Amino acid sequence: MISDKHIVLLVGGVGGAKLAYGMAKILPAEQLTIIVNTGDDFWHYGLRICPDLDTITYTLGGVVDPHNGWGLAGDTRQTMKSLKHFGADPWFGLGDRDLATHLFRTQLWHEKISLTQITQQITEAFGIKHTILPMTDAPVPTLVETIERGTLGFQEYFVKYRWQPTVTHIYSAGIEQTTISPQVQEALNRADAIVIGPSNPWLSINPILSVPGMRAMIEKGDKPRIAMTPIIAGNAVKGPTAKIMRELGYKVTAHTVCEFYGSSINGFIIDECDKDLGEIFSTPTLAIDTLMDTNEKRVQVARETLNWIKEIR
Amino acid sequence: MISDKHIVLLVGGVGGAKLAYGMAKILPAEQLTIIVNTGDDFWHYGLRICPDLDTITYTLGGVVDPHNGWGLAGDTRQTMKSLKHFGADPWFGLGDRDLATHLFRTQLWHEKISLTQITQQITEAFGIKHTILPMTDAPVPTLVETIERGTLGFQEYFVKYRWQPTVTHIYSAGIEQTTISPQVQEALNRADAIVIGPSNPWLSINPILSVPGMRAMIEKGDKPRIAMTPIIAGNAVKGPTAKIMRELGYKVTAHTVCEFYGSSINGFIIDECDKDLGEIFSTPTLAIDTLMDTNEKRVQVARETLNWIKEIR
Repeated sequence: MISDKHIVLLVGGVGGAKLAYGMAKILPAEQLTIIVNTGDDFWHYGLRICPDLDTITYTLGGVVDPHNGWGLAGDTRQTMKSLKHFGADPWFGLGDRDLATHLFRTQLWHEKISLTQITQQITEAFGIKHTILPMTDAPVPTLVETIERGTLGFQEYFVKYRWQPTVTHIYSAGIEQTTISPQVQEALNRADAIVIGPSNPWLSINPILSVPGMRAMIEKGDKPRIAMTPIIAGNAVKGPTAKIMRELGYKVTAHTVCEFYGSSINGFIIDECDKDLGEIFSTPTLAIDTLMDTNEKRVQVARETLNWIKEIR
Repeated sequence: MISDKHIVLLVGGVGGAKLAYGMAKILPAEQLTIIVNTGDDFWHYGLRICPDLDTITYTLGGVVDPHNGWGLAGDTRQTMKSLKHFGADPWFGLGDRDLATHLFRTQLWHEKISLTQITQQITEAFGIKHTILPMTDAPVPTLVETIERGTLGFQEYFVKYRWQPTVTHIYSAGIEQTTISPQVQEALNRADAIVIGPSNPWLSINPILSVPGMRAMIEKGDKPRIAMTPIIAGNAVKGPTAKIMRELGYKVTAHTVCEFYGSSINGFIIDECDKDLGEIFSTPTLAIDTLMDTNEKRVQVARETLNWIKEIR
């Protein structure tokens, strides 16, 4: 129905997972590759934790906690509760079953297996047929410079301090030294279209686009490459996107997001409630109901996105 | 009642924990220091795991699993169950609450805090007043050479292969480079007597005695230093002691153990059922009922041991 085109979807965590879920319901495994931000990854209690990869994996595996949008549904927290007895502040949510994912990944990490291969083993264990790829195999921590707390690791900023400090700058430490993985390269080479999910452009998508070679590969040829706004009616559906935009001096509109992506995209999806703002976009836009608050809406938004790609071509 | 003498007890895991429990019930905190084998410590799923330290801690904290003698009573195993979904073979028992101990320790380990200090924080969290010290701060893995499986890490030998491979040699990798910690040194300096618990002499006690400087400090002066046999009626109460003795070419008797300790001891406790074997010991012996299958028996054996120390002096 959507023909045999290969779509590459770039996403962060919870927001992007909704579109990934919708697309995975429509496209067969060989027609969808999901490239995931790893700038949020960090070491915690000696474990290698990849929050965005896990969120996408648990969502596509149908086992994500429906309330939080991350973690495993019905998971227990015995380990976390016990950590408190040590006077430790277990600020990052670790479910008992979720911990198995971190333990397994950490074991393979120490065996020098690439994050791409580790992710493949984990997604297979969750019965996922679609390919989920980390944006790069090397650690590229996203660092957040703040007024109140200085430079923070992403999870400290996001979870420990609940994105309350004022952001002055965001960057990916050591990204110049990383390389695009063969698997990401192959997926982009094979791509007929690229979709950027409604994730945080500064925190989730920019790290992906900043991997050396990534932008060039995305812009190569003249394939459709469209992004979906995370901003609806001047606000973010969830999370710190709007707050960060304000702090970085941007106007909180879908238009700002579109301009931020610049030549990385040649199509932009805004929410229908923003279509009468009279803004002039530098790229063609599509206005649809982008709110994906149910599984049905996720599939519907994915379908409208894929249909538009066919029109653009 | 036992006067104000300071006792240092050397132990491994489950067997030694029984005597440690009994002594801790009798002696106030300032009169008992327990030095624990760390040759069993290993990295597993990226976590630093110290089985003997945890067994002693959980036992003295009154939270040990009474059936196994290790792990936490009533612990759940959600993480381990989930690890199986990854095709991993979680051969080492990790309870969910037990995992918190490993996570906390690993976090501090990566912060370059010494194992001695980490252990102090953990034992305090379990409400333990007595001092529990790792034999040394540096990793000194006990390696077991076997006929069937080559050289194995201790936990692989002991847990993964259930001590079934035939042992040809046991050694502590890198022990020459380790040093006795200031805390162990201080405890031994202050000691009025040293007791070696009924742990495996080759696997648990010899690693402790092999830390450079340890034997000299124990033998310094002429204080009582007595060991308790782990062999009763030609067999071990639990575990591979007898099997290993046979494989290493020893006769499986308490007498062999006593000779193995040599000048490190000047007193040896055998089980009363072995007192009529007519063996000539090179050191004074005491024959008592050494089986510590109840908490009452543990206190009783500890009391008889401490009373004998007073007589020896």
